[in-house]
Amino acid sequence: MRLALDLAQGAAGQTGINPAVGCVVVKDGRIVGLGSHLKRGEAHAEIHALNMAGAEAAGATVYVTLEPCSHHGRTPPCCDRLIAEGVARVVVAAADPNPQVAGKGIQRLNAHGIETEVGLLEDRSHTLNEAFRKYIATGLPFVTLKTALTLDGRIAARGGHSRWITGPQAREAVHTLRHRHQAIMVGVETILSDDPELTTRLPVPALHPVRLIVDSRLRTPIGARVLNEEAPTWILTTTSADPAAAESLRKAGAELIVCGEGPRVDLTEAMKELGRREIGSVLLEGGGVLNGAMLQTGLVDKLMLFYAAKIVGSEEAPPAFAFRGPDRMTDAWPLKGVSIEHYGDDWCVTGYPASLGQPPDGGG
Amino acid sequence: MRLALDLAQGAAGQTGINPAVGCVVVKDGRIVGLGSHLKRGEAHAEIHALNMAGAEAAGATVYVTLEPCSHHGRTPPCCDRLIAEGVARVVVAAADPNPQVAGKGIQRLNAHGIETEVGLLEDRSHTLNEAFRKYIATGLPFVTLKTALTLDGRIAARGGHSRWITGPQAREAVHTLRHRHQAIMVGVETILSDDPELTTRLPVPALHPVRLIVDSRLRTPIGARVLNEEAPTWILTTTSADPAAAESLRKAGAELIVCGEGPRVDLTEAMKELGRREIGSVLLEGGGVLNGAMLQTGLVDKLMLFYAAKIVGSEEAPPAFAFRGPDRMTDAWPLKGVSIEHYGDDWCVTGYPASLGQPPDGGG
Repeated sequence: MRLALDLAQGAAGQTGINPAVGCVVVKDGRIVGLGSHLKRGEAHAEIHALNMAGAEAAGATVYVTLEPCSHHGRTPPCCDRLIAEGVARVVVAAADPNPQVAGKGIQRLNAHGIETEVGLLEDRSHTLNEAFRKYIATGLPFVTLKTALTLDGRIAARGGHSRWITGPQAREAVHTLRHRHQAIMVGVETILSDDPELTTRLPVPALHPVRLIVDSRLRTPIGARVLNEEAPTWILTTTSADPAAAESLRKAGAELIVCGEGPRVDLTEAMKELGRREIGSVLLEGGGVLNGAMLQTGLVDKLMLFYAAKIVGSEEAPPAFAFRGPDRMTDAWPLKGVSIEHYGDDWCVTGYPASLGQPPDGGG
Repeated sequence: MRLALDLAQGAAGQTGINPAVGCVVVKDGRIVGLGSHLKRGEAHAEIHALNMAGAEAAGATVYVTLEPCSHHGRTPPCCDRLIAEGVARVVVAAADPNPQVAGKGIQRLNAHGIETEVGLLEDRSHTLNEAFRKYIATGLPFVTLKTALTLDGRIAARGGHSRWITGPQAREAVHTLRHRHQAIMVGVETILSDDPELTTRLPVPALHPVRLIVDSRLRTPIGARVLNEEAPTWILTTTSADPAAAESLRKAGAELIVCGEGPRVDLTEAMKELGRREIGSVLLEGGGVLNGAMLQTGLVDKLMLFYAAKIVGSEEAPPAFAFRGPDRMTDAWPLKGVSIEHYGDDWCVTGYPASLGQPPDGGG
């Protein structure tokens, strides 16, 4: 199952809205088939692995990281194929995240005399598909807030200069994160101050996420690098934005998504619309204001904070989270499931807001 | 030598201005003597260990974490005793930190036919006595800035409330730090807002450091708990402070130390005076302003930042380092020798300012 999870993880980010799934077929103590789900609309992990196994599949044990599907989607149900091949046993890490079909694949296998076991390394499978699990249950994308910051919680020096906070290893990790997300989200202030491309730059070819700009008043310049053709660019705006600016930006290649009447972009509405467009994962690389607004609205599912061992002085330097917090330290927002990973001289603190969807009342 | 270092570490903090030293005597493959320097003015580590070894010391190998002294201080020179016992070999972790006498103990042993080796686990001995090493070379105390802070670099919520940021394990670690320092230093704002005792509270009896309050205008209230009798309290102030307030505070048990003419306490002068009073180590537990001022003045030797996995919102909450930092991120102050230790749900980032004594120009 560990290998199956590794297979799934390896292809994470390239299956669009679909989950990452891995599969290993074992017969008489030998691996006879391996597979990952590689691309949306193409074969599931089980099919690749069974194809590799060929006739050896009969009587084999199949390890798969997610419950095999029993319904016709873009491809025929994997359960039917497992039954047809005559496998003896199926070990599943986690049940289908869709509550409406969870357990049905297992039932179908059992009904055909195939032995099943569910829950082996379930936590790892859950983490691997945490975005898919949220999307399938709520229709909303899973939002990972990523920021680089100093020891004193700043994302730029007081002059606004921010390049670079972290070193090359942390920055490469961020580009791998971009590859694994369907969309990347920033505020227009980032476009105006840094003019970033917001593409995935890695030593190997990688996927570019859809670029999202929160821009209530359409201040994105026509010449901004984010409007190049390397990836789609969607601008989240409001009905109060200037129609002429909207037309210019459309001509420059951007797609405009209207989220509420303003003056600020309705972030909840924005997430719903992204969900409708089958965006299941968003990497939020905002400044302090957008980060704070997303956190306060309860729309952030995970935080990845890349710290550099430096101090930039706190009085005027922009903070990572610019919002009016609680009055008392005991009402601070805790993270749960915290882990620390090192990247060269820097380290990343990863955690999940403990009171997801119920931000403490402290907002302005 | 590892055991000798452990012996030294165990008694760290209880030798006053003296270094922590451990000693192990080995004869024919067996340990025959162990010792630590336990209290200033009493026997050095070597003497305790040789006493334990008795007649076995003749022909033995002696492992000692710091070069044995060759001069008469408060106790007779250890070199003379090693020579008198007829030991065969002395292995030393680090030479004497006092540049004026470094190497003299080794020379004296060699002159009497005792084989010597210097440098075994030298780094660990250096770290163990980093405070003593600075003090002996400069006459100034070694300052460790300790603060608890949120992920966004805040030391209190916007209402000023700060108890508690970190959990019980981190707080106990801080009390162990207090035990190991000769003085603890805060600003008067901390006295006014928290009314702390600033004593060492551990499940076992421990030593209380001298309490230092930076208070240029003598705003410390006569009834402040920091003026209780559990430890000496020294107030660092200026010539412009009110003489009547000074008299009241003296009557309440405080000792006043005048550092400059004001309006602010001359921190460099304060450190020099502490050095003259044989304070070799200071634990700085200031608020953002005092922390920032000490950092900017180049008086901080080490930082220990205890992070809690929580976010308190950054706009109005007091920051850990309140000073006007550099304009550009590339001029941020880096830490070197960074390590991370976990304490329950919290973690401590320890590091040393990379440009000690040469803070980048950015100060206000």
